[in-house]
Amino acid sequence: MLSFASDYIAGAHPDVIRRLTETNLENLSGYGTDPYCESARQKIREACGCPDAEVYFLVGGTQTNQVVISTMLAPYEGVIAAKTGHVSTHEAGAIEYTGHKVLELDGVNGKLTAEAVAEYMKIFTADGNQEHMVYPGMVYLSFPTEYGTLYSKAELTAIAKVCRQYEIPLYLDGARLGYGLMSAQNDLTLQDIAGLCDAFYIGGTKVGALCGEAVVFPGNAAPKHFMTQIKQHGALLAKGRLLGIQFDTLFSNDLYWKISEHAIRMAEKLKELFREKGYAFFMESPTNQQFLILENAKMQELAEHVEFSFWETYDDTHTVVRFATSWSTTEEDIRLLGSFL
Amino acid sequence: MLSFASDYIAGAHPDVIRRLTETNLENLSGYGTDPYCESARQKIREACGCPDAEVYFLVGGTQTNQVVISTMLAPYEGVIAAKTGHVSTHEAGAIEYTGHKVLELDGVNGKLTAEAVAEYMKIFTADGNQEHMVYPGMVYLSFPTEYGTLYSKAELTAIAKVCRQYEIPLYLDGARLGYGLMSAQNDLTLQDIAGLCDAFYIGGTKVGALCGEAVVFPGNAAPKHFMTQIKQHGALLAKGRLLGIQFDTLFSNDLYWKISEHAIRMAEKLKELFREKGYAFFMESPTNQQFLILENAKMQELAEHVEFSFWETYDDTHTVVRFATSWSTTEEDIRLLGSFL
Amino acid sequence: MLSFASDYIAGAHPDVIRRLTETNLENLSGYGTDPYCESARQKIREACGCPDAEVYFLVGGTQTNQVVISTMLAPYEGVIAAKTGHVSTHEAGAIEYTGHKVLELDGVNGKLTAEAVAEYMKIFTADGNQEHMVYPGMVYLSFPTEYGTLYSKAELTAIAKVCRQYEIPLYLDGARLGYGLMSAQNDLTLQDIAGLCDAFYIGGTKVGALCGEAVVFPGNAAPKHFMTQIKQHGALLAKGRLLGIQFDTLFSNDLYWKISEHAIRMAEKLKELFREKGYAFFMESPTNQQFLILENAKMQELAEHVEFSFWETYDDTHTVVRFATSWSTTEEDIRLLGSFL
Amino acid sequence: MLSFASDYIAGAHPDVIRRLTETNLENLSGYGTDPYCESARQKIREACGCPDAEVYFLVGGTQTNQVVISTMLAPYEGVIAAKTGHVSTHEAGAIEYTGHKVLELDGVNGKLTAEAVAEYMKIFTADGNQEHMVYPGMVYLSFPTEYGTLYSKAELTAIAKVCRQYEIPLYLDGARLGYGLMSAQNDLTLQDIAGLCDAFYIGGTKVGALCGEAVVFPGNAAPKHFMTQIKQHGALLAKGRLLGIQFDTLFSNDLYWKISEHAIRMAEKLKELFREKGYAFFMESPTNQQFLILENAKMQELAEHVEFSFWETYDDTHTVVRFATSWSTTEEDIRLLGSFL
Repeated sequence: MLSFASDYIAGAHPDVIRRLTETNLENLSGYGTDPYCESARQKIREACGCPDAEVYFLVGGTQTNQVVISTMLAPYEGVIAAKTGHVSTHEAGAIEYTGHKVLELDGVNGKLTAEAVAEYMKIFTADGNQEHMVYPGMVYLSFPTEYGTLYSKAELTAIAKVCRQYEIPLYLDGARLGYGLMSAQNDLTLQDIAGLCDAFYIGGTKVGALCGEAVVFPGNAAPKHFMTQIKQHGALLAKGRLLGIQFDTLFSNDLYWKISEHAIRMAEKLKELFREKGYAFFMESPTNQQFLILENAKMQELAEHVEFSFWETYDDTHTVVRFATSWSTTEEDIRLLGSFL
Repeated sequence: MLSFASDYIAGAHPDVIRRLTETNLENLSGYGTDPYCESARQKIREACGCPDAEVYFLVGGTQTNQVVISTMLAPYEGVIAAKTGHVSTHEAGAIEYTGHKVLELDGVNGKLTAEAVAEYMKIFTADGNQEHMVYPGMVYLSFPTEYGTLYSKAELTAIAKVCRQYEIPLYLDGARLGYGLMSAQNDLTLQDIAGLCDAFYIGGTKVGALCGEAVVFPGNAAPKHFMTQIKQHGALLAKGRLLGIQFDTLFSNDLYWKISEHAIRMAEKLKELFREKGYAFFMESPTNQQFLILENAKMQELAEHVEFSFWETYDDTHTVVRFATSWSTTEEDIRLLGSFL
Repeated sequence: MLSFASDYIAGAHPDVIRRLTETNLENLSGYGTDPYCESARQKIREACGCPDAEVYFLVGGTQTNQVVISTMLAPYEGVIAAKTGHVSTHEAGAIEYTGHKVLELDGVNGKLTAEAVAEYMKIFTADGNQEHMVYPGMVYLSFPTEYGTLYSKAELTAIAKVCRQYEIPLYLDGARLGYGLMSAQNDLTLQDIAGLCDAFYIGGTKVGALCGEAVVFPGNAAPKHFMTQIKQHGALLAKGRLLGIQFDTLFSNDLYWKISEHAIRMAEKLKELFREKGYAFFMESPTNQQFLILENAKMQELAEHVEFSFWETYDDTHTVVRFATSWSTTEEDIRLLGSFL
Repeated sequence: MLSFASDYIAGAHPDVIRRLTETNLENLSGYGTDPYCESARQKIREACGCPDAEVYFLVGGTQTNQVVISTMLAPYEGVIAAKTGHVSTHEAGAIEYTGHKVLELDGVNGKLTAEAVAEYMKIFTADGNQEHMVYPGMVYLSFPTEYGTLYSKAELTAIAKVCRQYEIPLYLDGARLGYGLMSAQNDLTLQDIAGLCDAFYIGGTKVGALCGEAVVFPGNAAPKHFMTQIKQHGALLAKGRLLGIQFDTLFSNDLYWKISEHAIRMAEKLKELFREKGYAFFMESPTNQQFLILENAKMQELAEHVEFSFWETYDDTHTVVRFATSWSTTEEDIRLLGSFL
């Protein structure tokens, strides 16, 4: 069935699966110590423009957020996030499970603002009863956000500046990083992100891999005994090759960028299609997730032909739904979708 | 290089990687809801002789132990394990990280005894100050153990009986389950294990898969909201297909059993080789891990030609090392090893 | 110095300290098993109209919230609280430290509304992706609230009804319970609270004791192995007598109610004083905490003669401050305060 | 009834309760910021010979162990303790509850040895798979131990030396510190302990106070944001005066030492009594806890007249029991006990 249900409906990019097959019977050491992992790390360092960055591979997004946030925070600290952030709402309390509060700030279009962060931090430098409060020890944001929106270079720089002023790390969740960087509206580069953030991850699961996220510490300041902490979280993959080979392939011949660009191109065509047919958008998104307001009867009719995601109730007769494109979306998929609108 | 370093040096069994490739571009739903996961669950239920068993797929062994143990225990309970158990020593404190104590009992050849468990449980039914102690709420054991040894049917039945008497679950870590069940010394069947244990997992990572462990709750009594708890632990794989397709393949045409049997046959040949050449065994192991006592100079000489694992210092001039076979070990590997002994 | 800084500036009510002295050299058993604890439990059961209630004594308020909430929730559940609730803001993340999320809802005058709770719960009965969200497993509220406001009988009943509909417990933080129940505006009784809540605590620290909070489970449904879980949290007092004797005294001869009523009488006089002198109130509070808006210069002048608490910045030239009365406030204190206004 | 059941059967030393009464109606600030706390801290610093030491007051022993250990360890570290240590066996898993493993080493007479600690630490400096193990980040011991035994100055110095070699802190649980230091067999001073340990606590609950333990960081190196972390653990007492006044009294006029010495004198008389009457000792203890082997019939007879504690079963016809003296034991108690032997 035609599906725009999410950006992880297909397996891996064919080049990735081919490389897994080709290397399958090689004898390799475990836990990320094999040469494919090392090669992938080196390519990622180069792409980030950070020759000294530490790079680690983890399996999934929530796992990555949990491991990175809980190991970078002091035990008495919490992490600032937008109220609509993934860690705030859709990770089943994975951050709190590790003992840390998610300090939720109101955002704008899914984004934190430098002003709101600065105002919140200011509480902890004034006199008062902050000793009884959770200290904000980190800022979390995602690029793109849950709503597909993007931080501009100016916005991210402003937030990074607040973080530096208060000496707390800035962490960027890049589950869909490729789709953000390849958007026509984007003015940030991977090197910019590496320069502004203390930690971030390059998402593989949603961008061409079967699984896998590459965590980058550009300043070479991974948490102490990080491998042990990954193991302690149950997050250390025995056959690290599975992650190394996939990222090595994605970061060869610009594959990661090419397939991201393709997804964005498909998203633009999809937007155009909906716009032409007079559909209403819930929010303007410049990336691969598109949020539409559908009349309920139309929604049910459409659901017989194509898969998409329920997002939220709009009003008594309308619903917000999400259509996602990805590296695996084809021109034919878009054409077919058009025939049902 | 010739390697007996571990049982996870190769990728996946060729049939597994082939199926991943063949299904790669199918659009499938996430988080284990796809038809391959369902088919794999059904085949595993049949193999276990438990038509109602609940089956879940997780990515790795420590993760599985962490998720299962922490969700089956009450918050004030700990888990009984052998002092040499994997959860006691080599999981970086993953169980304690979730707030639970591992109650370590002395074992015999890496195995818990029913007597020791019964004696320990008895403390908590007598009068005294048990209110200030961690209640033993579960028994953990692995089959085979860390030392490659096996519980006999009589031994496992005796432990299960103690667990039932005290109404605590018995959980079996089957990271190498295939290699245990296919051993010539083994008198247990998968159905026996399903009948005696409240939870267990069938290891994929070490037995033919790129990653993945299949958790089975034979009595259909998985912890409440188990999917949410898996997510909360950062352990929910977005593309569940990666696990479902692998286990579906492994449990088709007896593949899991055939490749396990092959590993055991290779282990027997390897044992014979060492025995013929007069090497001393540290412990008698009937499964795929063999522990040898090497004279240090010989060990270094051998290390130039073949990879194996350091296990522990034996005395000033000898070392205990481990040689592991697996589904990927070839007759040629064994022959070559012989040429270096 | 004259002080309205908080409701815990004095030691214990003189009757309490006298009883501690009189019983001081008696040999008593520990951990709450002594006859004074039993007597206090019995008196509290009678005051609540719950002959079968389970009553436990803990040392402090945050400790009590932490122990009760973390032991009543399932591991995957969070607790609903007002955004301004004590557990949300001023307990240094004590709830999250135990692995549970505080699900913060917007309140009205510091109070949760039944509507908001019902609307939130409804999300978890609809279709959707709730499996990736923290399940709301309990409602927390305080009486009085952080702002000194009170739930009416109708309001508390409505919230209790929602809790019963969704089968989740209602927990009431009664750190200042006496000051709430003795307010002229209050229409709830202790028996009402015992009938509507699944757990609550009667605050001692702020109402006549040196320390101590009495946790009541009216339905006789304390968490399993509760003593062990208290110990596990580091919250079990060796000399339980210290808590038992205090609560036994407070619940003899209506002492708890008389001293609470006195504090309310003092609060009413204090309000009148401020009102007469033309001061502005930040919020109408019917209990022992009064929130005033002071012009900054006036605030500094007043601070030379009397202690009060900074609450929050109002605007560039005004500040919100809190004046608290308690059982230890005297008529002379009020008179003196008047002389400085 | 005559009681040697524990060393916390009485209230507080009469001087302590008198001072609580005298200061009862003074208006004091909370959370340890009052002048009595400051005075007590100063007296403790002087007694320790550490003018810069940081001193904090907590309520109970398990709480103190939990707070100190969990805040001094890195998240991936565990604490070394004797298998019979209080944190290993009788704190209901309070350390594991905070996510840390107690690394249990076999002890001798309840004591850790420097050799065993050194041998264990050595594992983590050798090559191998320590990345998958819990790093030992602290040594815990108690003085006296659970069996009333004492570390000599040479023994404690040797352990401290190992800790310094591996740069991990040494923490001493002094729940019964006074009874240890006043023993005739002891050759350590409080200043020695302050010089050798990185953290320790002076027990109040068992030595003259209603409750309270004074934590000392001699090197002025308390964990960062320690007050907030205490609050986060639910361990911050609102009326800190309760702890400050008690310790201020105990450390005035050598009260703490005089009452400790008294308890030891009573213990010596009790030992003599049992020895004269031909009773067998389970273990030679130089402090206030005495362990006797009683014939079961005799034990039951004795229990009609005097309270003591069950310790463990010795054989089919004998039981190990504990008799504890304390500051509140009288000569008359000893005489009476003699009449029943």
